[in-house]
Amino acid sequence: MFYVIGLGLGGAEDITVRGFEIVKKAERVYLEAYTSILTVGKEELEQFYGRSLIVADRDLVEQGADEILQDATSKDIAFLVVGDPFGATTHTDLVLRAREAGVSYKIIHNASIMNAVGCCGLQLYNFGETVSIPYWTESWQPDSFYDKIFGNRRRGLHTLCLLDIRVKEPTLESLTKKEKEYQPPHFMSVSEAAGQLLEIIRRKDGEYKELAYTNSTLCVGLARVGSDTQQILACTLQEMKDIHLGPPLHSLVITGHLHPLEVEYLTQFSDSKEKLLLVAQT
Amino acid sequence: MFYVIGLGLGGAEDITVRGFEIVKKAERVYLEAYTSILTVGKEELEQFYGRSLIVADRDLVEQGADEILQDATSKDIAFLVVGDPFGATTHTDLVLRAREAGVSYKIIHNASIMNAVGCCGLQLYNFGETVSIPYWTESWQPDSFYDKIFGNRRRGLHTLCLLDIRVKEPTLESLTKKEKEYQPPHFMSVSEAAGQLLEIIRRKDGEYKELAYTNSTLCVGLARVGSDTQQILACTLQEMKDIHLGPPLHSLVITGHLHPLEVEYLTQFSDSKEKLLLVAQT
Repeated sequence: MFYVIGLGLGGAEDITVRGFEIVKKAERVYLEAYTSILTVGKEELEQFYGRSLIVADRDLVEQGADEILQDATSKDIAFLVVGDPFGATTHTDLVLRAREAGVSYKIIHNASIMNAVGCCGLQLYNFGETVSIPYWTESWQPDSFYDKIFGNRRRGLHTLCLLDIRVKEPTLESLTKKEKEYQPPHFMSVSEAAGQLLEIIRRKDGEYKELAYTNSTLCVGLARVGSDTQQILACTLQEMKDIHLGPPLHSLVITGHLHPLEVEYLTQFSDSKEKLLLVAQT
Repeated sequence: MFYVIGLGLGGAEDITVRGFEIVKKAERVYLEAYTSILTVGKEELEQFYGRSLIVADRDLVEQGADEILQDATSKDIAFLVVGDPFGATTHTDLVLRAREAGVSYKIIHNASIMNAVGCCGLQLYNFGETVSIPYWTESWQPDSFYDKIFGNRRRGLHTLCLLDIRVKEPTLESLTKKEKEYQPPHFMSVSEAAGQLLEIIRRKDGEYKELAYTNSTLCVGLARVGSDTQQILACTLQEMKDIHLGPPLHSLVITGHLHPLEVEYLTQFSDSKEKLLLVAQT
């Protein structure tokens, strides 16, 4: 059996009891380590589980599915994923490969930022389409997520922005070499995301009658949701650009129409209740 | 401390290790039992946890917050919620009351149908706004969710439909009496939901040039997600009306634009791959 097990969002203890029992007994356990991260690393997880893990980087998952699935028709193989197993397309693909190889599979669900974002008090059924904000480079500055935010805001809906993660990206210089060298991992902060979002409306201003959002739109920054060091902050997009919420992962919400209960809940994440009430009205 | 702990979606083992440790040691543990259900009942949970639980029905949660929060400034009180704590507005309200009473709180996240629905292979970032479909009565047949499905489909997005749950609803006859009598609990099935959705377009047909969906729109029915008896079925809306997926809870997805990988994944939940490919093309 091939088990795809969600680890949730915080630390080692956020695995479910069902998932933990499988991890303890499985023949091999892979830890997917490039689409997301926990606040703890491989060593701490190994200590908690009392067993060794095999790190699965992008190359192994995308090109080594046969290796991962080896013997899975007769033995239990577990594949650990931060959050919920179906957060990323790449895991769907792995399950399809298991099916093609005649391997049965089971999914062990867990919290994902897609539902845990509710911890800021914004109601999940008031969210529209989720968007991803990628790191810009000098020559590649896509902003297709802008139209999606616009569509959501027009309908009064909040937008969850998933922020870019770059783990084990080859350096530009080593791309053509046999031995690849890797850039240090980097994770987009709410501050960097706010910077890119502000840059987009700066460029569009004048061109359009109406913008998707302004620099005074109320946003919510979330860091390390579900962990003991979780931080949530509600402020304007302009203020978010100068906010530091510490280590990864970060997520950003651009609010739509706010219900009074949502505003009341958000006040606990603002440095001034009065200021938040003012921003929420604009 | 007041802990709000998500139980996930399947059985007793779907609580996280972090949540389980809190449940074992807490002074009192409440089980919220009216916004959702697991596939197991209170007794099985009590046996698994090795302790007794207090059932929290709608009356207690909405009017007895003081009772639930009693002593929570000095002792640990846990409040168990099926799925993730922030699936329902009522839990947000309870946390606000804790704050007002000067009680610290912590949220222990878990899977919710809002993210676990990804198990059918439809990508979470292709979902628009989630809708709720309520049971119709003879005199009350709201269809505001129709416009939301329309908005999602226009943008090519899938719609997750949460289906109505009626637990401990007073009978009409006992509404004015001192001693209330309750209706047996009922849970909307994918078949009932499909019936209401078809009835809506039957009424609107002719009125409008374009409908949000047709009887041949591809839908996905999900039952008891995350449990050992989980069932998923992909078929047309018309076919869904005659489908029986067994005991609750059920959820229904109305698909939008389908990516080839999504279609490929869905074929495993159809009785005929060829038929599914045909339906997906329309």
